[in-house]
Amino acid sequence: MDFKLTPEQEDIRRAAREFAEKEFTPEVIEECDREEKYPMEIVRKARDLGFSTVKIPEEYGGMGLSLFEEALVTEEFYRVSPGIGNACLSSTFGTELLILFGSEEQKEKYLRWVTERHGISAMATTEPEAGSDVANVKTKIVKEGDEWVINGTKMFITNGTVCDFVLVLGRTYEGEKRHHGLTFAIVESKSKGFKATKIKNKLGLRASDTAEIVLKDVKVPEENILGEPGKGFYYLMEFFNHTRPRVAAQAVGIAQGAFELALNYVKQRKQFGQPIAAFQHTQFKIAEMATRIQAARLLTWQAAWQCSIGQSRPELSSMAKWFAGETAVYVADWCVQLHGGYGYIGEYPAERYYRDAKLMEIYEGTKEVQKQIIARRLIGKL
Amino acid sequence: MDFKLTPEQEDIRRAAREFAEKEFTPEVIEECDREEKYPMEIVRKARDLGFSTVKIPEEYGGMGLSLFEEALVTEEFYRVSPGIGNACLSSTFGTELLILFGSEEQKEKYLRWVTERHGISAMATTEPEAGSDVANVKTKIVKEGDEWVINGTKMFITNGTVCDFVLVLGRTYEGEKRHHGLTFAIVESKSKGFKATKIKNKLGLRASDTAEIVLKDVKVPEENILGEPGKGFYYLMEFFNHTRPRVAAQAVGIAQGAFELALNYVKQRKQFGQPIAAFQHTQFKIAEMATRIQAARLLTWQAAWQCSIGQSRPELSSMAKWFAGETAVYVADWCVQLHGGYGYIGEYPAERYYRDAKLMEIYEGTKEVQKQIIARRLIGKL
Amino acid sequence: MDFKLTPEQEDIRRAAREFAEKEFTPEVIEECDREEKYPMEIVRKARDLGFSTVKIPEEYGGMGLSLFEEALVTEEFYRVSPGIGNACLSSTFGTELLILFGSEEQKEKYLRWVTERHGISAMATTEPEAGSDVANVKTKIVKEGDEWVINGTKMFITNGTVCDFVLVLGRTYEGEKRHHGLTFAIVESKSKGFKATKIKNKLGLRASDTAEIVLKDVKVPEENILGEPGKGFYYLMEFFNHTRPRVAAQAVGIAQGAFELALNYVKQRKQFGQPIAAFQHTQFKIAEMATRIQAARLLTWQAAWQCSIGQSRPELSSMAKWFAGETAVYVADWCVQLHGGYGYIGEYPAERYYRDAKLMEIYEGTKEVQKQIIARRLIGKL
Amino acid sequence: MDFKLTPEQEDIRRAAREFAEKEFTPEVIEECDREEKYPMEIVRKARDLGFSTVKIPEEYGGMGLSLFEEALVTEEFYRVSPGIGNACLSSTFGTELLILFGSEEQKEKYLRWVTERHGISAMATTEPEAGSDVANVKTKIVKEGDEWVINGTKMFITNGTVCDFVLVLGRTYEGEKRHHGLTFAIVESKSKGFKATKIKNKLGLRASDTAEIVLKDVKVPEENILGEPGKGFYYLMEFFNHTRPRVAAQAVGIAQGAFELALNYVKQRKQFGQPIAAFQHTQFKIAEMATRIQAARLLTWQAAWQCSIGQSRPELSSMAKWFAGETAVYVADWCVQLHGGYGYIGEYPAERYYRDAKLMEIYEGTKEVQKQIIARRLIGKL
Repeated sequence: MDFKLTPEQEDIRRAAREFAEKEFTPEVIEECDREEKYPMEIVRKARDLGFSTVKIPEEYGGMGLSLFEEALVTEEFYRVSPGIGNACLSSTFGTELLILFGSEEQKEKYLRWVTERHGISAMATTEPEAGSDVANVKTKIVKEGDEWVINGTKMFITNGTVCDFVLVLGRTYEGEKRHHGLTFAIVESKSKGFKATKIKNKLGLRASDTAEIVLKDVKVPEENILGEPGKGFYYLMEFFNHTRPRVAAQAVGIAQGAFELALNYVKQRKQFGQPIAAFQHTQFKIAEMATRIQAARLLTWQAAWQCSIGQSRPELSSMAKWFAGETAVYVADWCVQLHGGYGYIGEYPAERYYRDAKLMEIYEGTKEVQKQIIARRLIGKL
Repeated sequence: MDFKLTPEQEDIRRAAREFAEKEFTPEVIEECDREEKYPMEIVRKARDLGFSTVKIPEEYGGMGLSLFEEALVTEEFYRVSPGIGNACLSSTFGTELLILFGSEEQKEKYLRWVTERHGISAMATTEPEAGSDVANVKTKIVKEGDEWVINGTKMFITNGTVCDFVLVLGRTYEGEKRHHGLTFAIVESKSKGFKATKIKNKLGLRASDTAEIVLKDVKVPEENILGEPGKGFYYLMEFFNHTRPRVAAQAVGIAQGAFELALNYVKQRKQFGQPIAAFQHTQFKIAEMATRIQAARLLTWQAAWQCSIGQSRPELSSMAKWFAGETAVYVADWCVQLHGGYGYIGEYPAERYYRDAKLMEIYEGTKEVQKQIIARRLIGKL
Repeated sequence: MDFKLTPEQEDIRRAAREFAEKEFTPEVIEECDREEKYPMEIVRKARDLGFSTVKIPEEYGGMGLSLFEEALVTEEFYRVSPGIGNACLSSTFGTELLILFGSEEQKEKYLRWVTERHGISAMATTEPEAGSDVANVKTKIVKEGDEWVINGTKMFITNGTVCDFVLVLGRTYEGEKRHHGLTFAIVESKSKGFKATKIKNKLGLRASDTAEIVLKDVKVPEENILGEPGKGFYYLMEFFNHTRPRVAAQAVGIAQGAFELALNYVKQRKQFGQPIAAFQHTQFKIAEMATRIQAARLLTWQAAWQCSIGQSRPELSSMAKWFAGETAVYVADWCVQLHGGYGYIGEYPAERYYRDAKLMEIYEGTKEVQKQIIARRLIGKL
Repeated sequence: MDFKLTPEQEDIRRAAREFAEKEFTPEVIEECDREEKYPMEIVRKARDLGFSTVKIPEEYGGMGLSLFEEALVTEEFYRVSPGIGNACLSSTFGTELLILFGSEEQKEKYLRWVTERHGISAMATTEPEAGSDVANVKTKIVKEGDEWVINGTKMFITNGTVCDFVLVLGRTYEGEKRHHGLTFAIVESKSKGFKATKIKNKLGLRASDTAEIVLKDVKVPEENILGEPGKGFYYLMEFFNHTRPRVAAQAVGIAQGAFELALNYVKQRKQFGQPIAAFQHTQFKIAEMATRIQAARLLTWQAAWQCSIGQSRPELSSMAKWFAGETAVYVADWCVQLHGGYGYIGEYPAERYYRDAKLMEIYEGTKEVQKQIIARRLIGKL
């Protein structure tokens, strides 16, 4: 048992902090948030420095590190700007699947696209009628001759309009159970029949691109099917074990950023002749926020560490995900509250964290889904 | 003890509901929210029908009813649209002070302006350095000859750029204690030296106008001083006793609106082959939301009723204010959560309630200020 | 709408308070709690003064008032001692059923026994395998000739070893649904085959008698069947509508008692050179406790009032029950916490409220059951 | 960063679990709880096996390990029985001070008494008027000739009536600040003038001995003064850094024990035709309990680890202490709730955890004190 980061981990963490603090300027943050603008230039800079390819093996041009290091980078990026952090670090979203289950050829082609040519990836699971209930996917991926033909509609797809390729989950056949018969196909966005429409007016994470994707008779060659057809659901479950600690790290970053905002504010803002940090209520809230953040961080680190040693534990990933998400919402709420009226106006960053934080309880499995997963693991067969 | 509304109260409530449901169309709500546009036309319509002059005595052209009836109207308006509801019902904000402490001449002039000529009033207490700490007001109201000269800056003033007159709190002299020597002056917005600047990019309540007001050598005649100079703080405290149940009613309205949204959604949205309302977790949340709303409503009604019989009880007003505010935030949060990804995008109204609700815990005294007031009343001298 | 008690209600409330403060002495409270002793003498005194026959019609020797007045008395009794309050006021438990559904003869006999001869009643619904799931009752009530024969085991029966008669719920026949075929029989405790065993070592409410009852071939005449055989479940549901506001009032009383203890203590206890009531954290807790109690009280009053006008509303009864129960636990917990180490030892009454309070979330339907009921009413058919 | 226990740590943990499960039988647990009996025999067995001397250096006959290992043992013991666990592991309470600040002679004498002759130690800081406010200690430790004379009253002293020696905090002189001038003296319980009176009727932890100690002209030789006179407050603060993670581990143990009880119960208990573990509400509660326990455990481990590498961090110790304490209360409450009526009676162990857990938020610094400490460290000078 050792709670000390290695020197290499400390270095990565520091580099990520420095990059975020330098590149995510208040002006850019505000512009991207207000105008829902994707910060392509910063995304590419972050890519060039390896921040978004931490987990991609060195042989394919990545940093060759683990989810643990990725979690460190993630916290630092989201701490400064959840929106831009998301744009940067989710720009390789879905490559986890390739790393875990891709063929040599798929890795060569798509991971290299990412590491060498600024390729942006995406992952398309959710559908209008299949949110928490992923097994209800209706998109069809059907073999016709040498090709597979895809038809369906995907919802809330991160990077939908900016991605170069996307891993699409669809139904290849009706299995005995609903989650049988699902398959992933790698679809390039330039494909005929691929149409992405940006979803506007999101509550937060507005620098990040979210889209609805309609696939109409999109064709992909045999070699673009991931692993074995029909095993998509199992791939997805393992994917989630690896990405939920990542979302947890996002949430910890948001919480940490909002906490520091609040801490600075209460030390400067005076009321009744003294800084509001002198009031016991403020002090206790600072203590509560800090404690919950530290608890969330440790849960996140443990879940990420399990993945990094090749022993992912779904219940720990889910614990980290929901607890950190709830912490982000809690801390952002108190950050606004401690700012008083200034917490409610756009001139101060508090309200942005408030809007950004809420997604942490929703995407990549709502907190309800996480609790279901934990419970199943702990209760077992009845 | 009787928990039944009178037939007249039922009528007013129904009329308010019908008006709000008819006039606050989804299109107008969205436009005003997105563009931070003040819905002047609807504000005037609501005025013509008496919804914003409920408490103004009949002799001055008002409805001549009480805070209790106003609370009923308020809940109905905010239920449909917190933003437009605020624009409509806060359009006479500050007239409470005139009703309570104004001279016959002041009432004749300013209340009639409101009831007969669509006059919009405002109340300017808060300053950049005086939020919760109202006694720290720095604005000067100084007598020079026959006139009083006003200098200072006011912050977060509802109706700042649309009002016709505003009740400005300032310091007339240094008293023994900080809250001595404060005075209210009625200032018309057309006065020389009066400048209001709209505060943009608010988190929510964006249909409502909020401004910073700078007063530079603004002059008002003797007759525009409210009551006795130096008693401003006491007037303000009594004002708050009457307006906090009103904010509580706003919060109940927001909570009720968000609750109904959530309830409808969970009955329609299907996951895992059934409406999500069939899940026990959803059911329990629905029950918890409804219970907290009903508790908040009863606290609000009791506090308003106390004012309506002329026996305002500050601790009940403050209890209603903070509890209802917290309830609004809680319910809006769960409304978003139960919507899943759809709760996070502007196409659905859930995220708007989420943004609007948070102000309920902040303005007209943060929840912290309310708790301080309650505690002082209950603990007494130590 | 009127939040004022009538003079008669004020009188009853005052009388109940005076009685409780005079009769429930610290010595008796402690003795009954420590030794799990039933305070028969006080129970009879309270009976003589009518406190436990508030709702029994005057024609049968009761006070002829309503659930609302009973709720007032209940709060006052539990405020001073939940244990003795329970012994006194639950000594007529189950008579609600007789009032609602009993025949003239049953009322004549059993209500008069209560009002004129200190009769103690009880209500036996719960069984070892049928707690929240009341429809699962296994006790048999079977007709044999002119008599009905009862066999079964009842659990957690208040007054089990001290009662004179008990309303027993059992199954008369298998209905189409599990809750069909249930019937209530009035069983006298002196009956052959009736055996009650006191349950010892309860966490709290130790002055109250709780027992397991075994019924072995107990026989009752035809006239002891309540209402119509097979309708027991419906009678029980209506019974709960009327008794849940009563439990809510118990919980409000416990909360109020614990609150006053805490308030007195924090004004007297000094740390860091001042009363701990001078600390902001203490003040905010006092405010939060008081607010939640007032909210719980209003929910309770409204639910009770609905019953008192003959329009019971199950969702309001359930809202009051769970919210007040949770409030009692919350307030008792903070009462202990604010007492520090003194909150943990028997020399101070704080720990007793802590133990007593918890039952409020459990008996007469756990808070989970209450939420289920509310949800069903609000969501309706799916 | 490594979340894996070493093989040695795994061994200790397993040994502790086996010992607790074997020795803390249900009969003993119940007897000690009901009769407030100190389990001397088990305490000595645990001592013989080294469980209560984990941190005492090998050179004085201890195990020579660290707080981290002690935390592992602590969790296992409290998991099975908080009361007996406390009796066993607090039987060396206060030796931390000797290890940290004792002279060679003091260690030789008193640590060996503990490791070789079943000596029981205690720590006497709290006084009737000095709880959270330790600097307010009134006990006098005054030099008279070659000896020091002690007068005062100590409150809530663990092991008060069973200890062989106790570290007493008293005032040697009035310093500039209240926490100057405090000194620790080692007092043997057989000393003339030493009188301990057991505090009875505690809410929980009833197998543990708690006493009031009156010291009347108790004399100790010069060599029994710990470290430097006047530095007692600083010694105490460092002591707390080391003992608070220990209390956190106690709380985690209680939570874990209560959680397992609940988990087993919900899998077996049937209602509505299925185990209550099949209900979503139950499942989510199980998930929430487990997550909070894991978060508390990680905070505890990190704080303990900091001490074990000689870099105690007060804010982490305090975070672990309050968060774990709150978790224990939360989990024990839900353990009772999920048991329904069976959670309220002594026949089932749930209610005992409920009573035991509450102390975790109170002793060795209430949760309020912990938050104060964290806030001071994070906010710094204002």
